[in-house]
Amino acid sequence: MDIRDYIEEHAPEFFASLTEWLAIPSISADPDRHADVAGSADWLRTYLLEAGFPTAEVWPTGEPGAPGLPAVFAEWPSASPDAPVVLIYGHHDVQPVEPLEEWESPPFVPVQDGDLLLGRGSSDDKGQVLFHALGVRAGLAASGESAPPVTLKLLIEGEEESGSPHFAGLLRDRRDRLRCDVIVVTDTTMWAADVPSMCVGMRGVVSAEISVAGPERDLHSGSFGGAVPNPLHVLADMLSGLHDSDGRVTIPGFYDNVLPLSDAERELIARLPFDERAWLAEAGHSGATSGEAGYGTLERVWTRPTAEVNGMWGGHTGTGGKTIVPARAHAKLSFRLVANQEPGDIIAGFRQYVREHTPAGIEATVEAESDGVRPCFSPMDSPAVRAGRRAMERAFGAEILFTREGGSGPEADLADILEAPLVFVAVGLDSDRIHAPNERVSMSLLLKGAEAAAYLWDELAAVASELTARR
Amino acid sequence: MDIRDYIEEHAPEFFASLTEWLAIPSISADPDRHADVAGSADWLRTYLLEAGFPTAEVWPTGEPGAPGLPAVFAEWPSASPDAPVVLIYGHHDVQPVEPLEEWESPPFVPVQDGDLLLGRGSSDDKGQVLFHALGVRAGLAASGESAPPVTLKLLIEGEEESGSPHFAGLLRDRRDRLRCDVIVVTDTTMWAADVPSMCVGMRGVVSAEISVAGPERDLHSGSFGGAVPNPLHVLADMLSGLHDSDGRVTIPGFYDNVLPLSDAERELIARLPFDERAWLAEAGHSGATSGEAGYGTLERVWTRPTAEVNGMWGGHTGTGGKTIVPARAHAKLSFRLVANQEPGDIIAGFRQYVREHTPAGIEATVEAESDGVRPCFSPMDSPAVRAGRRAMERAFGAEILFTREGGSGPEADLADILEAPLVFVAVGLDSDRIHAPNERVSMSLLLKGAEAAAYLWDELAAVASELTARR
Repeated sequence: MDIRDYIEEHAPEFFASLTEWLAIPSISADPDRHADVAGSADWLRTYLLEAGFPTAEVWPTGEPGAPGLPAVFAEWPSASPDAPVVLIYGHHDVQPVEPLEEWESPPFVPVQDGDLLLGRGSSDDKGQVLFHALGVRAGLAASGESAPPVTLKLLIEGEEESGSPHFAGLLRDRRDRLRCDVIVVTDTTMWAADVPSMCVGMRGVVSAEISVAGPERDLHSGSFGGAVPNPLHVLADMLSGLHDSDGRVTIPGFYDNVLPLSDAERELIARLPFDERAWLAEAGHSGATSGEAGYGTLERVWTRPTAEVNGMWGGHTGTGGKTIVPARAHAKLSFRLVANQEPGDIIAGFRQYVREHTPAGIEATVEAESDGVRPCFSPMDSPAVRAGRRAMERAFGAEILFTREGGSGPEADLADILEAPLVFVAVGLDSDRIHAPNERVSMSLLLKGAEAAAYLWDELAAVASELTARR
Repeated sequence: MDIRDYIEEHAPEFFASLTEWLAIPSISADPDRHADVAGSADWLRTYLLEAGFPTAEVWPTGEPGAPGLPAVFAEWPSASPDAPVVLIYGHHDVQPVEPLEEWESPPFVPVQDGDLLLGRGSSDDKGQVLFHALGVRAGLAASGESAPPVTLKLLIEGEEESGSPHFAGLLRDRRDRLRCDVIVVTDTTMWAADVPSMCVGMRGVVSAEISVAGPERDLHSGSFGGAVPNPLHVLADMLSGLHDSDGRVTIPGFYDNVLPLSDAERELIARLPFDERAWLAEAGHSGATSGEAGYGTLERVWTRPTAEVNGMWGGHTGTGGKTIVPARAHAKLSFRLVANQEPGDIIAGFRQYVREHTPAGIEATVEAESDGVRPCFSPMDSPAVRAGRRAMERAFGAEILFTREGGSGPEADLADILEAPLVFVAVGLDSDRIHAPNERVSMSLLLKGAEAAAYLWDELAAVASELTARR
């Protein structure tokens, strides 16, 4: 039986199951819903067993005294011991639903509206997790085999919407069982329903706070103003000097390890139908874009690192005036990182920058995260991305373009700890209203996702030797 | 009888009177003490009448429905109608006394300790107001005349320590009776007991607040960071750019009307025994001085204008990190002004500066005081300052050096509204602990002040034609 036919035939039962799962309010951020997160894990484990996975387990996380929320692990070994091992990553917890009054239908009573299925988690991420089960069934039906051409592992965590606090620990603890040759992430978006695309990278991030100290106490600006260094002036100088006139970050060594944007990726980004005006409107920004010279807006948010001031304060901030030279000034900064920048290097460079910009009479201290989130990136010409792209092309019958994401999830931990390349195969849309009221998903796109997943195992098997060469 | 002998002979009764007056807790900032401020005014009026002033009146201030605290006006006409008219300015209200537990003796029970008289108001300003009464009596005793050689007017306000909210109004309302050729201000300090000096200027001040607006709401720095203008970056650029590498303010036209520091004044400032290390220690500043290139510390705080950031805030200022491009950023600034800068010109220049430094996509607004405080300055070679200096030199038997003050009181209003030059004759010291617990005054210096006041009327009479030429 043809893969597409199988999926079409089994769509009604797929959506019935998904509807059942979506009804479980697995909000990881809400302690009152933690039993539901556990219930969601149990539901998924049972479902995967019924779908044919020989193994499906609920994995607790955290420490005995301080437990986290459970993940689900499932495995379906290939008949061939040499086949690549593929780990599929997703999550079964969902975002909170406030403000509840803005939902047009109750968030945990899924309803269909034309091609849309509405409900919390329909796109992020239950719908996208579940299409893999349909995809593997379709692949087996088409091939007539009893096992997939690659060894499939699923790891579906329950704390992604709460910052994945126990995820890295889980990966380290279960490293042996999670061992894999490639990681398929199913928690991103495509450019548009009619512009199918794959994500190939995410920026990392690392944060720091700077404190600038001058006099012991606020000084009268009549008596001292103009003759002692003002911490607010020093901080303004430091923050202003962080970028040169080309919008480039001036921190020593900041760009040293940046992997340049390839001409090929650049050309594909340029082909995305990007409406800058609409993008600005979405940001509530009536004005103009700005940033590093030589790069377009998408290139800037996807492929270039930043130094961003997130907050600053110092001196008198209440009503009225106060003519002081203030004692202290502070700022919070975060740096978005791209491959192959290391958070530790960036913080070291920032400390050096601050030292070099601290005038006499001023003390400046930097407190920074010890780790941060590393960037992740999968080159377009890597075997996994090539295979993923072919699978998507077969499902959509169209050229697949490439995107990246400006922000970060736990994906870098996956790649770092499991030492395997990432490939992002997902069919969510920016219009799915994830994290917002009235989350929805296109049912036809979920079926396309199942189809792409079904092709993906063949395509990955076809590049098996390249994928397993690192073993 | 010799002036000095008269003063010495009458010193005991002078200090007895001053002690009586200091016992009245005329704290203008404390509504519970407003009856005492009125009592202080009554006391002074009675005292001046007894001292021989033909006229002494209590002047109410404010509006009928919103009264202020009373001032005292007294007048002693010269026998000659062509004599210069001199207005003496001081105040009879005092600072609050908190923290009370730090006083070694009760603030309103004056006690003598060697040459010191301790009590709230002993230096600021009751002691210095009262020496004028002793001075005029001594002058008349020495000359044998029944009227002083100049027409004396006293205006002693009751709200100086509360920001003189009704003072400008009072000056305007009573302009005819306050008409004068020169204003003697007795509310400043000398460099040191053994380095007698006169103040010749005070910096003015005008304040502004700037608000920088970018996106409608805080944006996710992963999705937008690096591609839209960040209001905190723009504000940092604006504030950093306010000074060039020489520490000069870059606001258009900022220095256009600045009266340059004369070589003569500069030379006299250089002769003041200034201990920069001690001055920094007083500021709780362990580090170095800094400021406009080409000027020393005293020159910077006394004779040069500033642009000082007093406070700034924007974005996330709470605990932890928040990876946003913030919607708004704010800063409060004040500009210390010197002769002949106009507050309105400076604000206009600042608005232009902000306009010129506002990039596309950002909206910046400036809110500023409509008036501010104008600077005041009396040239060293002006007739009034020359006369005041000779009077001080005769009293102290020493060369009189010049100082200025970095901050501002209501003196500019006096000069502006009454259209007369200022001369500062006072004997307070920085060590008098004004505004702090254990305020004290040197009794011998108060007697020197009386002596200088006695000489001052002769010295001003000697330059009568120069003083009255403007009439």
